[in-house]
Amino acid sequence: MTKKDRNLYLTNKPLQEAMEEYLHSISRSFAGISDEIIMVQDALGRKTASPVFAKISAPHYNAAAMDGIAVDASVTNGASETNPIQLKIDKDYTIVNTGAPLTMKRNAVVMVEDIVEVDDETVEIRSAVSPWQHVRPVGEDVVKGELILSENHIIRPQDIAALLTGGIERVKVKRKISVGIIPTGSEITELVDPLPEGKIIESNSKMFYALLSSYEATGTTYPIVKDEPAEIRLAIEKAVDENDLVVVNAGSSAGTKDYTVDVLREIGVVFTHGIAIKPGKPAILAEVKGKPVVGIPGYPVSAYVVFEQVVKSLVYALQNQKPMLVEKLKATLARRIVSSLKHEEFVRVKVGKVDERWIATPLNRGAGVTMSLVKADGILRIPQLTEGYDKGDSVEVELSRSQEDLSNTIVSIGSHDIVMDLIANELQKKNDNLALSSAHVGSMGGIIAMKQKECHLAPIHLLDEISGEYNIEYVRKYFANEKMSMIKLVKRSQGLMVQQGNPKEITSLEDLGREDISMINRQKGAGTRILLDYMMKIKKMDPNLLQGYQREMTTHMAVAVAIKNDTADCGLGVESAAKAMGLDFIPIAWEEYDLLIPQYMLETEKIKRLLEVIRSDSFVKQVMRLGGYDCSQTGKTILI
Amino acid sequence: MTKKDRNLYLTNKPLQEAMEEYLHSISRSFAGISDEIIMVQDALGRKTASPVFAKISAPHYNAAAMDGIAVDASVTNGASETNPIQLKIDKDYTIVNTGAPLTMKRNAVVMVEDIVEVDDETVEIRSAVSPWQHVRPVGEDVVKGELILSENHIIRPQDIAALLTGGIERVKVKRKISVGIIPTGSEITELVDPLPEGKIIESNSKMFYALLSSYEATGTTYPIVKDEPAEIRLAIEKAVDENDLVVVNAGSSAGTKDYTVDVLREIGVVFTHGIAIKPGKPAILAEVKGKPVVGIPGYPVSAYVVFEQVVKSLVYALQNQKPMLVEKLKATLARRIVSSLKHEEFVRVKVGKVDERWIATPLNRGAGVTMSLVKADGILRIPQLTEGYDKGDSVEVELSRSQEDLSNTIVSIGSHDIVMDLIANELQKKNDNLALSSAHVGSMGGIIAMKQKECHLAPIHLLDEISGEYNIEYVRKYFANEKMSMIKLVKRSQGLMVQQGNPKEITSLEDLGREDISMINRQKGAGTRILLDYMMKIKKMDPNLLQGYQREMTTHMAVAVAIKNDTADCGLGVESAAKAMGLDFIPIAWEEYDLLIPQYMLETEKIKRLLEVIRSDSFVKQVMRLGGYDCSQTGKTILI
Repeated sequence: MTKKDRNLYLTNKPLQEAMEEYLHSISRSFAGISDEIIMVQDALGRKTASPVFAKISAPHYNAAAMDGIAVDASVTNGASETNPIQLKIDKDYTIVNTGAPLTMKRNAVVMVEDIVEVDDETVEIRSAVSPWQHVRPVGEDVVKGELILSENHIIRPQDIAALLTGGIERVKVKRKISVGIIPTGSEITELVDPLPEGKIIESNSKMFYALLSSYEATGTTYPIVKDEPAEIRLAIEKAVDENDLVVVNAGSSAGTKDYTVDVLREIGVVFTHGIAIKPGKPAILAEVKGKPVVGIPGYPVSAYVVFEQVVKSLVYALQNQKPMLVEKLKATLARRIVSSLKHEEFVRVKVGKVDERWIATPLNRGAGVTMSLVKADGILRIPQLTEGYDKGDSVEVELSRSQEDLSNTIVSIGSHDIVMDLIANELQKKNDNLALSSAHVGSMGGIIAMKQKECHLAPIHLLDEISGEYNIEYVRKYFANEKMSMIKLVKRSQGLMVQQGNPKEITSLEDLGREDISMINRQKGAGTRILLDYMMKIKKMDPNLLQGYQREMTTHMAVAVAIKNDTADCGLGVESAAKAMGLDFIPIAWEEYDLLIPQYMLETEKIKRLLEVIRSDSFVKQVMRLGGYDCSQTGKTILI
Repeated sequence: MTKKDRNLYLTNKPLQEAMEEYLHSISRSFAGISDEIIMVQDALGRKTASPVFAKISAPHYNAAAMDGIAVDASVTNGASETNPIQLKIDKDYTIVNTGAPLTMKRNAVVMVEDIVEVDDETVEIRSAVSPWQHVRPVGEDVVKGELILSENHIIRPQDIAALLTGGIERVKVKRKISVGIIPTGSEITELVDPLPEGKIIESNSKMFYALLSSYEATGTTYPIVKDEPAEIRLAIEKAVDENDLVVVNAGSSAGTKDYTVDVLREIGVVFTHGIAIKPGKPAILAEVKGKPVVGIPGYPVSAYVVFEQVVKSLVYALQNQKPMLVEKLKATLARRIVSSLKHEEFVRVKVGKVDERWIATPLNRGAGVTMSLVKADGILRIPQLTEGYDKGDSVEVELSRSQEDLSNTIVSIGSHDIVMDLIANELQKKNDNLALSSAHVGSMGGIIAMKQKECHLAPIHLLDEISGEYNIEYVRKYFANEKMSMIKLVKRSQGLMVQQGNPKEITSLEDLGREDISMINRQKGAGTRILLDYMMKIKKMDPNLLQGYQREMTTHMAVAVAIKNDTADCGLGVESAAKAMGLDFIPIAWEEYDLLIPQYMLETEKIKRLLEVIRSDSFVKQVMRLGGYDCSQTGKTILI
């Protein structure tokens, strides 16, 4: 392995410049989208390929517009209250329901309400009618030869009705853009159980396929291709022959096994290799046989960003259409974000509405964190040549959920516990339009967010070293002038998580000082970290001497998973996490995990629904099933 | 036929009251939507029926986050520029690409850029690395046991990726609401060619089917049922067994053949028969075997309104969801609308942006005019107990097109000619995002709309009786203080349209005075009407003595179709309309049909694109092909 084997030198072309150049070149080589003729009832959302003119008029006959009798208006001449005229069936009138055709030169309809029945064959009328009264003339709706739809019109439900009404059974539409999706990578595999070590589940192509359907395009996913240039080449050539546009997923970077760009240079033209965006830099914009081929990086968030920024624009541009506008929202940034001047960055953010103010909180920025896309309510773009934004800045977020949904979201910022996931699920299950969105920043992070009115509630477990009491002292200190409430949630068992069977025979916190023990820690500000430091102080141990003390994880489950996978021997955490991961557990202390909520919010509809969930039997039962919890106080309110 | 045979007495229940009562009753009897388990990749847009927790962590092993070498961090202790350390392959390091698993207790990655290659088996490093540097730990993305999606979550593309990443292959989702659609009516038929007189093409059920797909529900259309109570009953019972919700189309009114309500009373409960809305009053809200059954009127616009107002709400309510919000817009009303106090009215309107002001123009309010739904840009609701709105009022329109589309629309108000349809089509064909929207109100209507800045252009053909010249004198008179321009469009041949073969031997306008001739006229303010009246004056004929003079149509094609269908012998109109309808034509005069546009608008992008179309060869060729036009002046600009 030497440097020369690698495409070290990616360009850093701004996204807009890269796309303009690319679309310009593609538009000259691209042959265009062909047409197809389909049944009108299947044409919803499709685009007409030629103007459509009515083949017949509708109605195609003069029709009764009311229930009643059809007459020749002249037979009613002179009728009045004092001079009723009698009419004979067949000779003078025909009984008609709404929609019935007018025959025998009849040219008017007398409403049933204006008729007096004399006998089965005779009626009497008491006022004259004028010709064409209550008649729907031929062509009232559609006139034969009339333009029903222009070319390039996107067909809606009412257009389907109008086309059929105009006698059109089949319609010529533009074919949908077809996109070939080629997953590559020797380490990629379809989901199998158990998953072999070193294998990665192929999930991007399924995400692409779903995204394409939201762009009104069709996707074809090809079999996974190994990291072999010849195989990649064959796959691309086949896909280019069979589709309008091809995406090659992964292998787009500059590693020793990243062959995509070399293959594309061989069989086509590469316009760009390296876009100044983060995540998503190692993208490739190329053309093979006049068709666009896009190389997309493998990390799921990079893949998502490049697909949305490049492939979406291409799909619409090839159809001479513009993508639907994305809903945008001005929000206050909850945390500072530092971004490099080198690239445009796409930061996933959570958005919540607290006290009529929209708050955007950045999520994990790692390109590998699919869950950041799931949790995100929108994207904040930080332009190139911008250093980022300060806490409190007003920023514009491109939303991926509607404002209405977002205003029905309870924002929780603070400590993490599995119990919060249970609440989120129960809340959404019982109140379809209500959601709980949790950011995990530790208990002190929750206190600070609450202080700055960035959340509706903060889950905390903070031990006061002097009183030995949980939470209340912290609230008194930080919210001296505010009326706060504490909703008791659970007592939970904190202790040492160790590997199954406890092979290192760990029995107490003192064992953390042993030379053969490496621990894993929680981040500063986490209640669990504060507890550990407090215990160390009591035991007069220097935490900095503990092996692994510097290695920080942000959730109990992340600590548990590190121990499970043998990268640490132990860590402090809650019993439920140990149990979920199949670890042994040595109890150290019971702590109180509560929800901090401003008093005035207790009366809001959202918080009332939340408290209903917390106080429900079904919730308490689910918590107790997890193990390691005490619910004797759950749901009690303390006003502070 | 007697009154007692008919359900004359529809109620007039306000929509909201009717729906609240209905939803309340249905919610108590409705058994709920069952679940189904489907493949994750097919789950886009579906709603989870239970919370989904990760089955595996991702990554499920500690992985290299960079290309380079994997090492045990301790072997690098003490390395520096002055004290490089040499490492041996296999014993000290393993070559890794991004994503590769860390094995053999290696716990850090040194980036390829920080390595000096000594030989094939030896590298040198010049700085120490800390444990877990450039390592993606197990569970960085998804931790086993973590909540990926709550219950009641609508699955998006990124959720599909996260589920697969968390080892989930199948997911339990709510079944989609299934809706049975029963078309009824002895006069209804599938589209056939030629259509027998008295038959109506079944188009509503296809519109419903398409609407359902936009509500994320599924539709099943049953065969057309004749107006026979026994057959209707059988069809409803079958559909209720097979679906969550059933709609019966037509037969919902109170005519002699409207059996739907009687059948529903027999086999279920009818909550409402008659809602205080227009169009759509004769709707039925019923329940059969605990499931909702909705009777929908037959007129297409009524059907659309009831489906959108009743069925849509039901579909979402049965899933405990709210419909997507409809985009709304404040606009100035271009014409007065009078509405009855008795009902809430849904008026279709065209919307255009002229000089930064949004203008809403009401369309044909007939319940039978499908084309009004096609042409509409939105719906204006006039509440019950409101008499309507005045011209110039600010009203709120529920949009069916996006604001962006609407601001790219050129608004034309004035006279009608087929040539305007050609322009509309060519414009949209050549400029995907640009549309021409035409309202046909006659030339004088166009002058008035232009005066009030409600349109971008007005097509006019107005003969000045004194000068004998077209258009210019009118513009001078009505726009004395404004800088206007006239774009010459076409000269067109006006004359008498008569039935094929001219059976009544009509040769000149004088024949209109004959006793055996009935004519059909255009509306007041139409250029063609002004021409007729002018000719009558010259010939010293009294137009009021002409048979049919009072019968007014608003387009050339409507006049042509009336003659074609034998309801009139002749009418004044353009040659192209006669030709399109297969009528004979007796030329009377050439007139000038031009576009009136304010001078300052000539420089706007939209009007420039329009003029390009008008001046193109392909447009002129299409016009000449119609017959009856002279294009020698087409595209010339006259400044007035």
